[in-house]
Amino acid sequence: MQKAQIGVTGLATMGRNLARNLARRGHTVAVHNRTAARTKALVEEFGHEGTFVPAETAEEFVAALERPRRLVVMVKAGAATDAVIDEFAPLLEPGDMIVDGGNAHFADTRRREAALRERGVHFVGAGISGGEEGALNGPSIMPGGPAESYEALGPLLESIAANVDGVPCVTHIGPDGAGHFVKMVHNGIEYADMQLIAESYDLLRHAAGLSPAEIAEVFRTWNTGRLESYLIEITAEVLAHTDAATGEPFVDVVLDRAEQKGTGRWTVQTALDLGVPVGGIAEAVFARSVSGHADLREAARDLPGPAREATKDAAFADAVERALYASKIVAYAQGFHQIQAASAEYGWDVDLGAVATIWRGGCIIRARFLDRIRAAYEADPRTVTLLTDGYFAEALAEAQDAWRGVVATAARLGIPTPGFSSALAYYDSLRAERLPAALTQGQRDFFGAHTYRRVDREGAFHTLWSDGRREVEA
Amino acid sequence: MQKAQIGVTGLATMGRNLARNLARRGHTVAVHNRTAARTKALVEEFGHEGTFVPAETAEEFVAALERPRRLVVMVKAGAATDAVIDEFAPLLEPGDMIVDGGNAHFADTRRREAALRERGVHFVGAGISGGEEGALNGPSIMPGGPAESYEALGPLLESIAANVDGVPCVTHIGPDGAGHFVKMVHNGIEYADMQLIAESYDLLRHAAGLSPAEIAEVFRTWNTGRLESYLIEITAEVLAHTDAATGEPFVDVVLDRAEQKGTGRWTVQTALDLGVPVGGIAEAVFARSVSGHADLREAARDLPGPAREATKDAAFADAVERALYASKIVAYAQGFHQIQAASAEYGWDVDLGAVATIWRGGCIIRARFLDRIRAAYEADPRTVTLLTDGYFAEALAEAQDAWRGVVATAARLGIPTPGFSSALAYYDSLRAERLPAALTQGQRDFFGAHTYRRVDREGAFHTLWSDGRREVEA
Repeated sequence: MQKAQIGVTGLATMGRNLARNLARRGHTVAVHNRTAARTKALVEEFGHEGTFVPAETAEEFVAALERPRRLVVMVKAGAATDAVIDEFAPLLEPGDMIVDGGNAHFADTRRREAALRERGVHFVGAGISGGEEGALNGPSIMPGGPAESYEALGPLLESIAANVDGVPCVTHIGPDGAGHFVKMVHNGIEYADMQLIAESYDLLRHAAGLSPAEIAEVFRTWNTGRLESYLIEITAEVLAHTDAATGEPFVDVVLDRAEQKGTGRWTVQTALDLGVPVGGIAEAVFARSVSGHADLREAARDLPGPAREATKDAAFADAVERALYASKIVAYAQGFHQIQAASAEYGWDVDLGAVATIWRGGCIIRARFLDRIRAAYEADPRTVTLLTDGYFAEALAEAQDAWRGVVATAARLGIPTPGFSSALAYYDSLRAERLPAALTQGQRDFFGAHTYRRVDREGAFHTLWSDGRREVEA
Repeated sequence: MQKAQIGVTGLATMGRNLARNLARRGHTVAVHNRTAARTKALVEEFGHEGTFVPAETAEEFVAALERPRRLVVMVKAGAATDAVIDEFAPLLEPGDMIVDGGNAHFADTRRREAALRERGVHFVGAGISGGEEGALNGPSIMPGGPAESYEALGPLLESIAANVDGVPCVTHIGPDGAGHFVKMVHNGIEYADMQLIAESYDLLRHAAGLSPAEIAEVFRTWNTGRLESYLIEITAEVLAHTDAATGEPFVDVVLDRAEQKGTGRWTVQTALDLGVPVGGIAEAVFARSVSGHADLREAARDLPGPAREATKDAAFADAVERALYASKIVAYAQGFHQIQAASAEYGWDVDLGAVATIWRGGCIIRARFLDRIRAAYEADPRTVTLLTDGYFAEALAEAQDAWRGVVATAARLGIPTPGFSSALAYYDSLRAERLPAALTQGQRDFFGAHTYRRVDREGAFHTLWSDGRREVEA
């Protein structure tokens, strides 16, 4: 029997599409599923696309793989992943590898990698972005794990990944949980990006008084410029769509309660642990959460707003484009800061430019914009924040008047723009000569003797607030 | 030998002050510390304040307590708490209780409570707020744990807690981790409140061009009105203080990097798990974090801002007061929402009005304002959000023009107001007839087949975006 170069276990849509992608690229693919019916269905329906080796049992599956065995797990993140690892690990030999292609939390990936390393088995936590369609036709892939594992795995992944300008959208991200971490932040940035787009739409609708069809045209135009991206493209598609049942704009018949699956939340929680400010991502997660609280919204519906006067100003759409672009730069700067901080914390040595490079295609946030980020890190790998890169700094400077105007208009008209506002506050905080954090430190010293530092000399100090207000060294 | 009504182990400042507070109120207090020198020092220095029973060993300490034994642990949260529990639990009998007065994470408290319950020992996770001074003279105390434990513990705590209008600032919060949870949210709200005050100061300084001494006067005036609170009071004190070494305003010689200890971060992380939007607290935590990133701030210092023109408008301080008050209402509404959500999640049945009542004194956020919250829950215990309570709704309505104006001015002048902006966006999101979350759901359905709901009929739907855009039931 022909040995398979790689095997996929877990044949729900993502796993099935990944297996088909591999087979279509000429690889022999072992396929396995807990319930064998799915394996059979895959081979029956798509067997003509390439060479599949169906396996009914774990033993058959492992036996079907050439060495080192490359075993891709595509099951629901969490307990199911541990169960599959527990089932297969005893059947593997040193040098074999398990690739987890699910949306695992990077801390779980670190734990699993450490446990399997003891057995000599490589564990590769691989973030895969692009949804079902990406899995089939070319995703962006973020594999972590031992560098050694990439030698045997990389060429296979490179053959199935999306490809931009001849560069496959996959690279070895770093040790243990680095791949899943970067995928998590990708999703967090995706939340922020989508929220900013939602605010842009809301402003064009309610401040400029445009219809969904007109706004679709605005997004279509934007998609020919610097905002060109998959998300802007599909925004135009969604806004242009008319609901067949009612003849209304599709966006008006959809219930306005956004759902979420958890990676945005993880991104913010992890950023808090790392001490990295990611207001743009947090506000996006909270905005979805607010939208879903039907009880609160029902209770608060009658709270008064300002008298609204739509601007009906032709220049307003252009101002929103600038606000969107500037806010987007901030969101990405925050996300890359978070990756940078985690890389330092865990010793991953992540190449930020390479991350930007592999996000240019295949994934949900794919955009022309990412090439600018790649270029920024290429020009200076030690870039502290993307905001100060020449191109982005100039874009921000050029956008800022419009950005400020849009935030001010939204506040006056009562249109919620938590993403735009938070991004602007971040920009203004970072460039502030002095922050009121000095007052905060003074208060903390007052009520909790937490001490403070001084601008004019080293050391920690405490003022005896209730004892003559003398200052003492702490 | 006289038996002690209560014992305190861990005699660093907080533990020592709590022991003194108990002794001063006429209770006999057993005292114990890992290193006996501290126990000795306490008795030597403060023995005249009441009756202390010093104990050198764990056995002596436990033997000194009358039954049921009330053993208060005042050690650093984390491993030290577990170590102390492991040491004392075997020496206790059913019905005895361990009170953890540290800043434990409520999840740890739940774990410890469950473990000790098996031994028949009550574990009381008690949040204590008010710092060193509060511990000595009357803190706000938030005990959780079995209701039964409060019968033996409550009267003691009520005798040492702060007292407002004859009501002691302590109540049984709810089972297991409820007390530490509520204390955590207290701290989260404290972060938000301090950030809003910091933004007010920054605006008065940089938009209105006032000096710290002038701003101190503004805060002093505010403290005679509806904003009357400990934090506003000490803000005036800190701003009025002149640095002796330089003759400069104290706030100008303090390094503007705010520090934090973790409970603000926990509040946000927990809110994310509960699906509760707490943008005000998150932006406050991030603002401290931004201030501490010296490298980013150094890199970003030269990013351009707008041409600033201070307003020099006498009415501006009044507008800031309104913005502060409105934003503060939002921050507290978010915090109480979080407690409400946790109470439902964990079956704690927390009395939100009682929480507001015991925060009126002793703790850092003590304020006249909290009586309004007490009244709101008294008027309607099922209040969904404080924003819609008659008094607060009116205050928000009355404040909103000024609030919007201040946020707009800050945006135009380049003064970061993440707290004000986030609060306003929350207000505007909750009262929005329609949110752009509908677009978000449309996008999610487009790229990930995540489905959506409709406004006009039940069910989950998916549009076949690349197959004629037909809608199908999911």
